[in-house]
Amino acid sequence: MTVDDYLRSARDRDWEQLESGTLRLAMVGLGWWTREQAIPAIESSEFCAATVAVSSTREKAADVVAGTLETAITYEEFVAGRAADEYDAVYICTPNARHLPYAAAAADHGKAILCEKPIEATHERAEKLVTTAESVPLMVAYRMQTDPQVRRMRELVADGAIGEPVVVHGHMGQQLLDAVSESPDQWRLDPELAGYGATVMDLGIYPLNTARFVLDADPVSVTAQMHSENEAFRNVPDQHAAFTVQFDDGTYAACTASQQAHRSGHLRIVGTEGELQLEPTFLGESPQRLRLRALDGRVAMDDGRRELFGDEMTEEFDYFADRILREEPVSPDGEHALVDMRTLAAIYEAAETDGTVSVA
Amino acid sequence: MTVDDYLRSARDRDWEQLESGTLRLAMVGLGWWTREQAIPAIESSEFCAATVAVSSTREKAADVVAGTLETAITYEEFVAGRAADEYDAVYICTPNARHLPYAAAAADHGKAILCEKPIEATHERAEKLVTTAESVPLMVAYRMQTDPQVRRMRELVADGAIGEPVVVHGHMGQQLLDAVSESPDQWRLDPELAGYGATVMDLGIYPLNTARFVLDADPVSVTAQMHSENEAFRNVPDQHAAFTVQFDDGTYAACTASQQAHRSGHLRIVGTEGELQLEPTFLGESPQRLRLRALDGRVAMDDGRRELFGDEMTEEFDYFADRILREEPVSPDGEHALVDMRTLAAIYEAAETDGTVSVA
Repeated sequence: MTVDDYLRSARDRDWEQLESGTLRLAMVGLGWWTREQAIPAIESSEFCAATVAVSSTREKAADVVAGTLETAITYEEFVAGRAADEYDAVYICTPNARHLPYAAAAADHGKAILCEKPIEATHERAEKLVTTAESVPLMVAYRMQTDPQVRRMRELVADGAIGEPVVVHGHMGQQLLDAVSESPDQWRLDPELAGYGATVMDLGIYPLNTARFVLDADPVSVTAQMHSENEAFRNVPDQHAAFTVQFDDGTYAACTASQQAHRSGHLRIVGTEGELQLEPTFLGESPQRLRLRALDGRVAMDDGRRELFGDEMTEEFDYFADRILREEPVSPDGEHALVDMRTLAAIYEAAETDGTVSVA
Repeated sequence: MTVDDYLRSARDRDWEQLESGTLRLAMVGLGWWTREQAIPAIESSEFCAATVAVSSTREKAADVVAGTLETAITYEEFVAGRAADEYDAVYICTPNARHLPYAAAAADHGKAILCEKPIEATHERAEKLVTTAESVPLMVAYRMQTDPQVRRMRELVADGAIGEPVVVHGHMGQQLLDAVSESPDQWRLDPELAGYGATVMDLGIYPLNTARFVLDADPVSVTAQMHSENEAFRNVPDQHAAFTVQFDDGTYAACTASQQAHRSGHLRIVGTEGELQLEPTFLGESPQRLRLRALDGRVAMDDGRRELFGDEMTEEFDYFADRILREEPVSPDGEHALVDMRTLAAIYEAAETDGTVSVA
């Protein structure tokens, strides 16, 4: 394919093979993201239907019942296997440290799993989750990896459109405290539920994982600096953070993340013969613009995405359904997510020990 | 001033007070930069004239004689004081490790100094230079600090246009080996002449120093990763580099630099309420675009610069002349440059020791 072909296909699905079919999903955890983003995305999807809502009480679960989403159960009922014949797969979107028990329950019931990122709160718990869920398909919900523009970036890099990749810049920032006042997201500030921290775990993982995907490379070593200043962040080390990652192809990523910054995200890959930029990104803003600046000129392109997160999540759910219904392997899988967990652990260790840390 | 006022003034000089006058300059070191950028910039300047050319032989120096530039002498003759009545100040643009002897000679002759960055090859030599030149005005040629757009960025940050600064991203890359084949710049690959390395010293210093200037903050601690892969870079540690800097206002900078990358540079300041971007920058490309993205919308602006480096260097020379002829203090001065030298030393130490290093 020529560069122009890639650019022309930047809004296209490159994976759809199902002609028809429906994957029925239990929605485990009904926070803002599930209610405002995931359920509407499934309603727009071709191959998914949300059928079961799982929350701490039946009343909470019943709040989202509408359309195909007919059954409301509690976490305890879900773990016990109630309504298991009403869903084929589960979408887990609880605080990080609750992913393991619900993934284990889903595996017990023989259901495929789409688990939000990061896969768990710590690397150790993540390994347990992957082992526990070995018997069922497990995909981790890195929504950037099914974003058509990000997939074209990866192909452009592999095709040499920017020569050899040299450095990556990535940032994701938002005002968490503003969001917290509107929704019960305080768990991100509680290490028991969030894991190593509040910001690299939640936001820094976007430039980290998207760089991995676009470069098709894995982290080798990291450095990091981070600090918290507001009282609300007193239990986590990373209200603001900066980190560098060396990848196994020699590329360096310079990344930042902040839970108290202007809402924005960007990703840039600089190579020996050009650069690719995706901006704004990570936060679902529209239009997300993919720009290729090559030695021979400049190409700018918009995709057609106009809904906040909506289209991106729809891509992810449909991709998951396409794979599960055709009984094909899913990607990114649990092993892929474990590399991020080792990298996240190394980033927090680097900041705490003031040292460069290898990603074992 | 309102944001609009700043943006309207983005091409204006904010320092000019001279009505007339001419500062006569000896050009010490006649490499590509002096011949192709500095001398033409001085020809376009209002308050400067190049009068004396200094190089390793009279023949080399005579190559640039034209117009007001009438006298060609050797480094030895310059040190001995020859033609000292034909210039008021010196512009030093030699390999880094030659700045000290020529600055010392200029101070001996009682001449003001405009010294290229980095001020010297090592922090120790830089301190000697500053001490040796105490008796004369010493300005370090950070051309971004007299760039009108960069000066407006600094004012916008100080005025709260992006809230509190949170993170900075900066990158500068070029293909040094391509440049080397056209000019005798191999000294950048020789630690005896270049100092700590080839890339952070030469390129990384741009995002580092420009961030310092725009934030009006100084570095506290750094992390770094770097490596060389090509044979040409075997004596220096940093063909490619990534580093983070924490500033004394809490802001983090995530920076990269490469001597083997697509020619490009960018600088971005993300704050709690908006962000400022300057791109392309550092490499004299036109138009250099300053963009303010604030909570209330987006403003884009071009400056009028169309000559490669030309206008930027003219600003710097005229600013220097305005200050020297009016006998006002210059900025950035030697003490300012010493902070960069300590930071550069810390960045190379961080990479070598795999540790976070404080900037003492």
